[in-house]
Amino acid sequence: MLVEFSIIPIGAGSSLGDHLAEVLRIVDSSGLPYKLNPMGTVIEGEWDETMKLIKKCHRAVMQTGERTVTRISMDDRKGKTNRIEAKVKSIEQRLGKSLKK
Amino acid sequence: MLVEFSIIPIGAGSSLGDHLAEVLRIVDSSGLPYKLNPMGTVIEGEWDETMKLIKKCHRAVMQTGERTVTRISMDDRKGKTNRIEAKVKSIEQRLGKSLKK
Amino acid sequence: MLVEFSIIPIGAGSSLGDHLAEVLRIVDSSGLPYKLNPMGTVIEGEWDETMKLIKKCHRAVMQTGERTVTRISMDDRKGKTNRIEAKVKSIEQRLGKSLKK
Amino acid sequence: MLVEFSIIPIGAGSSLGDHLAEVLRIVDSSGLPYKLNPMGTVIEGEWDETMKLIKKCHRAVMQTGERTVTRISMDDRKGKTNRIEAKVKSIEQRLGKSLKK
Repeated sequence: MLVEFSIIPIGAGSSLGDHLAEVLRIVDSSGLPYKLNPMGTVIEGEWDETMKLIKKCHRAVMQTGERTVTRISMDDRKGKTNRIEAKVKSIEQRLGKSLKK
Repeated sequence: MLVEFSIIPIGAGSSLGDHLAEVLRIVDSSGLPYKLNPMGTVIEGEWDETMKLIKKCHRAVMQTGERTVTRISMDDRKGKTNRIEAKVKSIEQRLGKSLKK
Repeated sequence: MLVEFSIIPIGAGSSLGDHLAEVLRIVDSSGLPYKLNPMGTVIEGEWDETMKLIKKCHRAVMQTGERTVTRISMDDRKGKTNRIEAKVKSIEQRLGKSLKK
Repeated sequence: MLVEFSIIPIGAGSSLGDHLAEVLRIVDSSGLPYKLNPMGTVIEGEWDETMKLIKKCHRAVMQTGERTVTRISMDDRKGKTNRIEAKVKSIEQRLGKSLKK
């Protein structure tokens, strides 16, 4: 399934870049397919492996502060794989043009 | 931590009541503190127990259809418990009046 | 339509109660139907009136700080009104029991 | 501000591609900066222009069905522009490596 998540440290100042860099370091070294966007990170995998990765990221941010807000959105569709590439391509094919990514 | 979640079956028609009733049956019998609202359900507990419950609900909905969108929001704050009651009361105390719940 | 929203000031410390109290003061005096829960506030109305209220709340929080994360979820269903009461009651009727709210 | 949104038609079957293509056609022709990802679309602009675009997309999807769930996340930070490019670059600079996008 596809899972987008974002992790926001509360009370750590208005610049979150150091925390987000640590999260992305964990994601990038996890081996799961991922795509970073300006509002979150999309990963693809089964429930247990994606949730294990998000828990690890959440814990890393909690270690540095008092409070964290984490948001997760899942899109689970039977019998479909490699949707992290296929969903956007499918839209581009229907429109017959390349979109900004 | 506090966790709000909602589970939406896609392609199951525009009435989702039967699916949501099954989700709430699972939540209500889980033993975790919860509060149902018109847009989701808030539960309180540690990561593993709250995620185990949401996975069980998500799986129950996936068994009946092809696609499910599940959204989860977590608010994790060190050293605070019973926030499922305390957060709303804290706002009411600051305002000096009872709010609609 | 039903709209749940939450507004989180970033960099304002880990206690957000004063900001949330101001948001709820605005919501409570708006005249729109609402229900506060531990993770957000659900309001009911047409697009323009619900978005106007959320914009007012968001602006109030931005005035006091540098950065704000606001999340909005809408459930828009043709020809249905008073869903802020009816959705939860519908689930309770299907289950034949009262749920925690 | 940065705004990510996703629009899900409920009860329109489990393939949403035609609806999403129509949404992206509207976004692509709007003139606002945007980036499509597998779970949503990020746009950048002021409150009124971003909300006007999302309302137009939501209305287009509602015209074809009975029920729509729309989710919006905003990240509003004073005095910062072109964050749709800068946020990801900032994380890459901190890590000293290119990430998957």
